[in-house]
Amino acid sequence: MRTVIECVPNISEGRDPERVREIADAVRAAPGVRLLDVSSDPSHNRSVLTFVGDAAAVKAGVAALFDAVVPRIDLTRHEGEHPRMGAVDVVPLIPIRGATVEECVVLSREVAAEIASRHGIPVYLYEDSAASEARRNLAEIRKGEFEGFAEKMKNPKWVPDFGPARPHPTAGVVAVGARSALIAYNINLGTNDLKVADSIARAIRHIGGGFRYVKAMGVALAERGQVQVSINMINYTKTPLHRVFECVKSEAERYGVSIVGSEIVGLAPADALFMAADHYLRLENFSSDQVLETRLLEEGE
Amino acid sequence: MRTVIECVPNISEGRDPERVREIADAVRAAPGVRLLDVSSDPSHNRSVLTFVGDAAAVKAGVAALFDAVVPRIDLTRHEGEHPRMGAVDVVPLIPIRGATVEECVVLSREVAAEIASRHGIPVYLYEDSAASEARRNLAEIRKGEFEGFAEKMKNPKWVPDFGPARPHPTAGVVAVGARSALIAYNINLGTNDLKVADSIARAIRHIGGGFRYVKAMGVALAERGQVQVSINMINYTKTPLHRVFECVKSEAERYGVSIVGSEIVGLAPADALFMAADHYLRLENFSSDQVLETRLLEEGE
Repeated sequence: MRTVIECVPNISEGRDPERVREIADAVRAAPGVRLLDVSSDPSHNRSVLTFVGDAAAVKAGVAALFDAVVPRIDLTRHEGEHPRMGAVDVVPLIPIRGATVEECVVLSREVAAEIASRHGIPVYLYEDSAASEARRNLAEIRKGEFEGFAEKMKNPKWVPDFGPARPHPTAGVVAVGARSALIAYNINLGTNDLKVADSIARAIRHIGGGFRYVKAMGVALAERGQVQVSINMINYTKTPLHRVFECVKSEAERYGVSIVGSEIVGLAPADALFMAADHYLRLENFSSDQVLETRLLEEGE
Repeated sequence: MRTVIECVPNISEGRDPERVREIADAVRAAPGVRLLDVSSDPSHNRSVLTFVGDAAAVKAGVAALFDAVVPRIDLTRHEGEHPRMGAVDVVPLIPIRGATVEECVVLSREVAAEIASRHGIPVYLYEDSAASEARRNLAEIRKGEFEGFAEKMKNPKWVPDFGPARPHPTAGVVAVGARSALIAYNINLGTNDLKVADSIARAIRHIGGGFRYVKAMGVALAERGQVQVSINMINYTKTPLHRVFECVKSEAERYGVSIVGSEIVGLAPADALFMAADHYLRLENFSSDQVLETRLLEEGE
């Protein structure tokens, strides 16, 4: 598998395991798709599927997803804690290996066109696929939720990028977009003073003058008697883990505080870790092609 | 592919590309085998095949290798710069993922028994598979080479572990053994004083009191005006890259010399790099299962 694109659709069903299983099975059966994970949250009444493949496989997987979801999820009868506007609520496309964000933007348009023409569902392009800055932010697009969209879409500002200017009666609308892989990364500090974590979070996050692709906040870890800088790395290729780690280390030293440890929550691409090894070992001309497992992935299929 | 065992057989043919291709094709066709690399050295008149698979696939690959090599390579007509004792000279088995050295030792015995019974070729178990310390070192086993083995094997000390006590008339004898993955790792220093590299190499290598799984020597890089500590990491899980790097850094500082860079030559397992990232980022509870590409390898097959 030379090209690996990750697709992480969120669907508005998290309480009926049988229905989620049927949908997951449909995605898994699409040619070239490898379904890696399915997580359901009953209180959100929402599930997240994680699958990978090349561009053709991702298209087939998304098509299978909509074919399975549209007859099974009726938003007029959906309730849950998480805001939502569609039966398939959002379809993020993430380049992992052998593909660029730009290629995923092209793919997102093709996927969007097919969803609109096949099911008559309006599609908004978001994040790196957004046609304008106003549509980059998913939360802005989703405002009003399913129940408010018939009205919202009368505003010319909210004409969809693909499909009709009215929500699908049961499936609502959907956002499709390319974005970089997100890594949930936490750095734990040897203090119980939340102010230290807060001030470091402010120093490193984009909004406060820090790294462009970092979102961060301070969190108390009561049971450990420590605090944490909780970070979303929204583009690890441009703002890598090690640079943020070293910056937090330096800022913490200013308070006489040391880093106890850090943690990656959930999945991360291998390159995010290779970049740290490359930095600290000062590797010359390192390429992930030198990694045996990378060869295995490329030789496969 | 949950279990990945690497097999790197060396064969005594490096000048006839067609013959090497036929042998490689036979290995590639074995069920479950993924052939990753074939490198021929005409002056050595020797080729190295790199293939991976689970235990069953490696067995099938080795069987296919011998079936292809025995009728094609005649050691009575072989010459080359590299010492050799067999048409298939050595069969190293290396655990990469989901397998231990101990499991590869078991596998080496099964492979050895099959080679001996199917082709009547004597087999010596070496490295971690060796029945005694005297047989651990491949160079010791190989002494006398093909031409000397009829005589050498009359010595009861050199009765083979499997097969008859006389060399195969055209295929000679073979060494089979489990060993850890070897990483060729060089650290480049910001000086042209070879004495500095030599003294650091002596400090870090096992024979001189250094790390147990490190072999090292100083090398001049004339064209760069620098010197290099050239290292063989013979067990990166027990003596990891970052520990050697930091030790070299500290020793170099004592001479007022800094590390310019380091390099991995050829292939390395992903875990060798993950261990460095884990160390420097002080990761808590990191597992390679958190790496997306690892999931892909495991979901496959």
